[in-house]
Amino acid sequence: MDTSTVLGYAAAFFSTVSFVPQVIKTLRTKDTSGISLLMYSVFTAGVALWLIFGVMTSNMPVTIANVIVLILASMVLVMKIRYK
Amino acid sequence: MDTSTVLGYAAAFFSTVSFVPQVIKTLRTKDTSGISLLMYSVFTAGVALWLIFGVMTSNMPVTIANVIVLILASMVLVMKIRYK
Repeated sequence: MDTSTVLGYAAAFFSTVSFVPQVIKTLRTKDTSGISLLMYSVFTAGVALWLIFGVMTSNMPVTIANVIVLILASMVLVMKIRYK
Repeated sequence: MDTSTVLGYAAAFFSTVSFVPQVIKTLRTKDTSGISLLMYSVFTAGVALWLIFGVMTSNMPVTIANVIVLILASMVLVMKIRYK
């Protein structure tokens, strides 16, 4: 694997798992006042489009990363709507 | 432009601009209690790696999108550290 491929996988890994602590924090505290509803609405839509793009272009890393982010970002979005 | 390219650009657009309302909200309210410091630390690191990946692979859409997200996510991260 060349350097750019390793970097790409590392980038995908960090930007994907980063949502885990936000989900855990929001599940625990139910504190969503500082979280932007518009951000998570638009972001979740963007991630859904990335997922369709990944499937259409048979790009497995993009598909897998965006399935995970879609689940995590949707959880934050649902909690934002529910706990306000 | 084929459908997948249009989808890719739309996905990049939505996932990038989504951070704008979060930055505006946090600038206005200074309310960062519900925002995960760990999320924004790891996410910003991931976006920085995406940016290096974009530059190394001469991928202009990835580079541009991640420059913008890096600026916006860094602003949220700095406000999270400052306003806690």
